[in-house]
Amino acid sequence: MEQPASNILQVKSLGIDTYREHIIFIRSDSHICRSEGFTALTRLIVTYGDKNIIATLDMVNSDMLHHFEIGLSEMALKQLGVKNGDQVSISHLKPIESLREVRTKMYNKKIDEQAYRSIINDIANGLYSDIELAAFIAASAGDNLDLEEIIWLTKAMIDSGSKLKWEEKIILDKHCIGGLPGNRVTPIVVSIVAATGLVIPKTSSRAITSPAGTADAVETMTPVALSLEQIKQVVDQENGCLAWGGSVKLSPADDILITVERALDIDSLGQMIASVLSKKAAAGSTHVIIEIPVGQTAKVRTGEEALKLQHYFKAVGDAIGLRVESLITDGSQPIGRGIGPALEAMDVLAVLRNQQNAPQDLKTRAILIAGALLELSTKFPKGHGQRVAKEILESGRALTKFQRICIAQGGFIEPKPAKYQVEIKSEKRGTVMAIDNRRLAKIAKLAGAPYYPSAGVYFISPIGTQVEKGQTLFTIHSEAEGELNYTVDYLKSADHIIQIE
Amino acid sequence: MEQPASNILQVKSLGIDTYREHIIFIRSDSHICRSEGFTALTRLIVTYGDKNIIATLDMVNSDMLHHFEIGLSEMALKQLGVKNGDQVSISHLKPIESLREVRTKMYNKKIDEQAYRSIINDIANGLYSDIELAAFIAASAGDNLDLEEIIWLTKAMIDSGSKLKWEEKIILDKHCIGGLPGNRVTPIVVSIVAATGLVIPKTSSRAITSPAGTADAVETMTPVALSLEQIKQVVDQENGCLAWGGSVKLSPADDILITVERALDIDSLGQMIASVLSKKAAAGSTHVIIEIPVGQTAKVRTGEEALKLQHYFKAVGDAIGLRVESLITDGSQPIGRGIGPALEAMDVLAVLRNQQNAPQDLKTRAILIAGALLELSTKFPKGHGQRVAKEILESGRALTKFQRICIAQGGFIEPKPAKYQVEIKSEKRGTVMAIDNRRLAKIAKLAGAPYYPSAGVYFISPIGTQVEKGQTLFTIHSEAEGELNYTVDYLKSADHIIQIE
Repeated sequence: MEQPASNILQVKSLGIDTYREHIIFIRSDSHICRSEGFTALTRLIVTYGDKNIIATLDMVNSDMLHHFEIGLSEMALKQLGVKNGDQVSISHLKPIESLREVRTKMYNKKIDEQAYRSIINDIANGLYSDIELAAFIAASAGDNLDLEEIIWLTKAMIDSGSKLKWEEKIILDKHCIGGLPGNRVTPIVVSIVAATGLVIPKTSSRAITSPAGTADAVETMTPVALSLEQIKQVVDQENGCLAWGGSVKLSPADDILITVERALDIDSLGQMIASVLSKKAAAGSTHVIIEIPVGQTAKVRTGEEALKLQHYFKAVGDAIGLRVESLITDGSQPIGRGIGPALEAMDVLAVLRNQQNAPQDLKTRAILIAGALLELSTKFPKGHGQRVAKEILESGRALTKFQRICIAQGGFIEPKPAKYQVEIKSEKRGTVMAIDNRRLAKIAKLAGAPYYPSAGVYFISPIGTQVEKGQTLFTIHSEAEGELNYTVDYLKSADHIIQIE
Repeated sequence: MEQPASNILQVKSLGIDTYREHIIFIRSDSHICRSEGFTALTRLIVTYGDKNIIATLDMVNSDMLHHFEIGLSEMALKQLGVKNGDQVSISHLKPIESLREVRTKMYNKKIDEQAYRSIINDIANGLYSDIELAAFIAASAGDNLDLEEIIWLTKAMIDSGSKLKWEEKIILDKHCIGGLPGNRVTPIVVSIVAATGLVIPKTSSRAITSPAGTADAVETMTPVALSLEQIKQVVDQENGCLAWGGSVKLSPADDILITVERALDIDSLGQMIASVLSKKAAAGSTHVIIEIPVGQTAKVRTGEEALKLQHYFKAVGDAIGLRVESLITDGSQPIGRGIGPALEAMDVLAVLRNQQNAPQDLKTRAILIAGALLELSTKFPKGHGQRVAKEILESGRALTKFQRICIAQGGFIEPKPAKYQVEIKSEKRGTVMAIDNRRLAKIAKLAGAPYYPSAGVYFISPIGTQVEKGQTLFTIHSEAEGELNYTVDYLKSADHIIQIE
């Protein structure tokens, strides 16, 4: 669309950080607002050279801006690549046609392959506002998508971003359905598998609703924001990597959806399967193990639900040419002791280093997953995977491989403990009978995880532990005193996180 | 919760208008952000004296603010009643428990009466962010609520706000399920009914997804933002009023939900019934007529759907003690000629003034609804309602009543025509066969309605009209040249708004 001269405005950096959604600020009494009829919250296109962003308008009624100026939020400045004084033009955003499909989905009707393609492309191109994203997520929450829709959504997500290609025929990958605090087996599994010479170019996500994702935990030890070229290089050299998937745009629409899912603290069967498998397929994986922990307060609560997931993962995998196998595991309590990026990284290092005090449950779980991958690759016969994995871990070869991967990614650093700690003690004597994983995760999040990498919970009372009155059950770690006090305050009103009888 | 001194900040007015959602601005390197661990988009409580608001945090990295200052959006300043230099304290927002219920609903599960009560109270208290509101709306879109849930939602909405009480035993009200552009019968119906001595304290909403709500149209002729006391006074004096429901907080949660529904451009059966009937019940109505226009491009598309709505309205009405009757009407084309606040008001005046050129369809429809109300009141026998209504209208008694109501509400002014107009002409000769109400409404909205009261579409080619090539089908009215050009631009790509054969 051609731009009238009045649509040209001069950029002013206001230093306002509005997170992911781009916000622009214009004077309400400016010529452009009056002539174009812009009002607060209008969605607009801002153009600089051949770059475009979609932004939401906030009106300014003060001398913070001149009539000919436009203020841009930090991310908007960065994405457009503009600085103070540059000239940008703004124009109306045409109605987004794919929102019609989102509406149909909200009414619980099935939508077709083309609909998912349009929605996902528009999301990847930044056309959706946060409330439109929230509506799409809510409309596809729970079981609202059928198998065919999940396949279409997955395919649309794969095609919306970059893809990795590998020369090897077998490319391994693994994923764990979250909800189980700790359980940071990935760095251990990747180290074991890569040590055998098999290829496992692992990209992981940051936390969605949990206190830490694998990428958050690994980032406390080595850089994870690798480019596609860097991933290629690390994997060519070491057979494996531990990268953050978001920085390589393997499934950019998913990365955007995840930020709103996080704010809403919800999961959707369809979105979850599409999110997981689209990333695997785009990363060029061929054989994938999915771990599904089951427990009363895990993300998956019943065996029935786990079997359903297993079925969906397999069926969607088949449809997109991925060999997918799921392992259903015990999700009744945290794996390892740390919950939060740095605390989980410390557990990982203890296992890799074969330290005496290393959490045995984390070690056992890592061997289970690594063993399944070794067998799935067909390089090792059925029934021998776990034995081989254990040997590699206990011989120190996994640690060596882990260190080499970290060095290839940019170097290794020891994760740091948090500044403030408070011990939470048992109010009575007895045996730990049950643990509320969700609330434990919430405590870690309130303490600042994953935003503050060293924040979280250090948990030392697994089910079956005999405790005395006054014995420490877990420690809350925080970087900010205010946040810590607030967390302790919340804890008082949240009983039964750890049930003792 | 007690506040450390560091939580006290000094207010600075930045003159930023963020519409309904409150935004606060704090420096990211301020002591409070570092000690409390606040990050962009954190939801916070801002307290001044005994007033609280919930706000979303934007971080500032510039000298726009000092370390000890807090910038507040315009609405936030207004709601807290603070000015430059006042001291406010900020604190964390505790997790909102009712969001758990929203999540359950997103998973398509039924939630109970207490759940709706908690959700609606939290919404009325401003605890929900826009994306949380969007999720709740999407989760209850379409048929996602069953009858019992709709009743609970309605009751929760009624109890969340103010209630009007009247001495008379029969209090009349009417509502039209939108989607039919124009159709501004309400001011005519209220004038007729009030002229008979029956009581009709009408509160109307502003547009949700349409180019104009009744309140928007009436506001171009007389003030509609009346307080509860003013409504009482007008009705005591004139038996009827034409007020905006939002300003009297009859169903405050609904007012908040509507702003997000508008942005999402969706409707939900449950939300709609709850929205309509909660406002009627809170306004003290006892007998209500609901008009359900049916047409291919109206909000309700089939007779079957209309019968379903009729059933739900009656059942929910019974459950909350309201006598509700629905009239299913023809919704195949606009009623009247104007679409947009001022243009619709001009149609209303033409009918009330018995002008020769008054739109006859609007007159007929108003008599139909008024007649039904007169009969429902039992003051007039079955079969005589329309005859009485017609006499009152044609005798000028309705106009007199309308003028008296306007004067009681603060005075009457003639609605003004828009600054810019473009005629859209037929490209061929033939007969008008069908009209796409949705697209016609969209054109009026793109032209600026309802934000610019005089903007909209003036429509002069109902179904059956014989048109020549080059003959005007409708005129687009706009307050801004840019908006007008943009609308014409969109129109080019939107064929078949008016089907001519």
